[in-house]
Amino acid sequence: MTREFFSVKTVSEVNAGFIPARRTQLEECALGDALGRVSAQPIVCVHNLPGFARSAVDGFALRASDTFGASSSVPAGLTVRGQVEMGSPPSIALAPGEAVAIPTGGALPDGADAIAMVEHTAPAVGDTVDVLQPVAPGEGVVRADEDVRAGTEVVPSGQSLRPAQLGVLAAAGVTSVAVRARPRVSIFSTGDEVVVPETPRLEIGQVRDATASALAGMTCRGGGTPEIGEIIRDEFALMRVSLQAALEHSDLIVVSAGSSVGARDLTAEVVDSLGDPGIWCHGLAIKPGKPTLLAECGDVPILGLPGNPVSALVVFGLIGVPLIQRIGGNTRPTPIPRLPAVLTRDVPSAPGRLDVVQVRLAQNTSEAWEAEPLFAKSSALSVLALADGQIQVPEEASGLYAGAEVMVELHG
Amino acid sequence: MTREFFSVKTVSEVNAGFIPARRTQLEECALGDALGRVSAQPIVCVHNLPGFARSAVDGFALRASDTFGASSSVPAGLTVRGQVEMGSPPSIALAPGEAVAIPTGGALPDGADAIAMVEHTAPAVGDTVDVLQPVAPGEGVVRADEDVRAGTEVVPSGQSLRPAQLGVLAAAGVTSVAVRARPRVSIFSTGDEVVVPETPRLEIGQVRDATASALAGMTCRGGGTPEIGEIIRDEFALMRVSLQAALEHSDLIVVSAGSSVGARDLTAEVVDSLGDPGIWCHGLAIKPGKPTLLAECGDVPILGLPGNPVSALVVFGLIGVPLIQRIGGNTRPTPIPRLPAVLTRDVPSAPGRLDVVQVRLAQNTSEAWEAEPLFAKSSALSVLALADGQIQVPEEASGLYAGAEVMVELHG
Repeated sequence: MTREFFSVKTVSEVNAGFIPARRTQLEECALGDALGRVSAQPIVCVHNLPGFARSAVDGFALRASDTFGASSSVPAGLTVRGQVEMGSPPSIALAPGEAVAIPTGGALPDGADAIAMVEHTAPAVGDTVDVLQPVAPGEGVVRADEDVRAGTEVVPSGQSLRPAQLGVLAAAGVTSVAVRARPRVSIFSTGDEVVVPETPRLEIGQVRDATASALAGMTCRGGGTPEIGEIIRDEFALMRVSLQAALEHSDLIVVSAGSSVGARDLTAEVVDSLGDPGIWCHGLAIKPGKPTLLAECGDVPILGLPGNPVSALVVFGLIGVPLIQRIGGNTRPTPIPRLPAVLTRDVPSAPGRLDVVQVRLAQNTSEAWEAEPLFAKSSALSVLALADGQIQVPEEASGLYAGAEVMVELHG
Repeated sequence: MTREFFSVKTVSEVNAGFIPARRTQLEECALGDALGRVSAQPIVCVHNLPGFARSAVDGFALRASDTFGASSSVPAGLTVRGQVEMGSPPSIALAPGEAVAIPTGGALPDGADAIAMVEHTAPAVGDTVDVLQPVAPGEGVVRADEDVRAGTEVVPSGQSLRPAQLGVLAAAGVTSVAVRARPRVSIFSTGDEVVVPETPRLEIGQVRDATASALAGMTCRGGGTPEIGEIIRDEFALMRVSLQAALEHSDLIVVSAGSSVGARDLTAEVVDSLGDPGIWCHGLAIKPGKPTLLAECGDVPILGLPGNPVSALVVFGLIGVPLIQRIGGNTRPTPIPRLPAVLTRDVPSAPGRLDVVQVRLAQNTSEAWEAEPLFAKSSALSVLALADGQIQVPEEASGLYAGAEVMVELHG
């Protein structure tokens, strides 16, 4: 990556251009713990599934040729040779003119090549069943390789495992999965005014650290393991010691700067002192969130976030979470969940800048979703906590009107 | 709830009509563990936030009246009385004609009622600063109660906590939250043919239990704690013993039946024997998923799922997950994440029945999403594992055409 000191980038430029090489290690994970873990290699099913020809219906296993020409008036009468037991190989091999009762999922006996649904049969005298219509070869049968053929990749590499994928892995007998370690994300808040959330009474001038808790939650949602570091005072030496130590055991370092201009500059100075390749960009064309910093020191990416909590969270969602996914080997991130809604009020915006606006959702009388923009100073974290999602007003747009259909990105 | 034995219901009828009273207990949870936990009561911020009047900009705290009539040509010259330190109460009280340098977030000193942005000032001789335009009272100031007023509910009851809400709780000094216990969901697979996923080699007729692993994943995503029980053979007495024991320590019991008709009937017989109020409905107007059973024994809801894994998962998503949320006190579930997409092929459907069709998503050259329907026998779990989401073809529709705009519900 080339060093582009103090250049202002758009969010898309950052996500397309800032590509750290770092990836977390492989590790084995039990299937029961694998939800949301990222597969580190393609997972192949080594044998056919279901692995044997089985019945798709409740009925009678038979030879299709025995039923050709059958009808309600001239049924094909077959001798019933007992019943297939669930979970066991059939003990019977069918001769011509014979049938075996079979439940859904039962294994097809030797000699049989089709199943007549019970609804298309009638009990007859003695051990005989009448088949009331012709059955084609293969009808009512799930082939041995119909679910999965041996050698098929059932889960691709780089996939955050979903519940249905845990199911298919269980079916394939895969009970241990090679996954990428969760990225370790060190989260630092800085600022002489910032104190830990446990502080019972604030002095005038102090604020509790809200950003670190929220970033930790977003880190978990993104597949990482957050570690909240000690709050760093606005001093070069102190910040440098903390970040340098974190480089040793972090896959990503996140620093939310103090709100003063001095604190903002401090992060850049410290990061610049930590070595090559250093700062990649400093400034993001987005509101809120302009004073964002991206760097790499050694092979550890560092993300410097704006001082105010709402800006920090918005930027972390757009840039930090994709970075966590990339480092954690997730090459198929879930599309951002969205919901179409109608805007209830005008949203002004300056062209040339991405505006991210928080909204609250409500369903109107016709059950359509309405999005109410929540305007506030960007420092009001309470607004972000109230918001169900956000809308993006793109760089080229100069605002949106009430009544416009928008896609709301849902907060997870 | 009235007992409606063997009646077939629609999904909406079930979700509107089957309302178990059971709720999990309250417990206290540390803020750092509260992501996704459900608040058990409204959480109120007991004091104002930020709690003191602070500067929104870098600049000079001053008396607005001292700047009236100021301009670049006739600036207001004020004596600078030092600087506000971040995180400390200001030691200075301003007299008329005085100013104090103040960083963003600094506490407003006594006597000051506005901030002049540094961009609207110029250094002058000695300790003096020139203010180049008038400043209105309150300008540049964040009021002490501007983020949150004391007594405001910052998180409602019944809310699955999101990252931004953890942030606002941290800001308010709330580091322990009253939440509902996660619903304990006992998951049973039944069927003589079903064996544990760890089974290295299958006999003809055996299948590994895929459903339980997938249901456990969906339970976690829905906020519950899954417990996978032993696989139950298709015998009344065995199933009754297992379910009766589970009633003691479960908030919800989920049984996926064996695929044979006998196994399906067995679940209903056992549940009916477990006592009042018993079976509420048996049969769901949905494809896949018809043979679904809903019951309550004592105050524990029991959900009997269809035998085939795909049907079981689809029904569990539509009915089981909302049940977990309800029992866990989540009264504000996140809207199902959706993505608009264009259908690539026709999807036939029978009117009067909800059809749920799995789709795979891809972005076309203009970056719009296309949804490819994945048709397969409902037993093919591999299809569900490949799918990025699903579409619902409503009861009243008789299918959808290629090119139709559909809303894809994303698999989490």
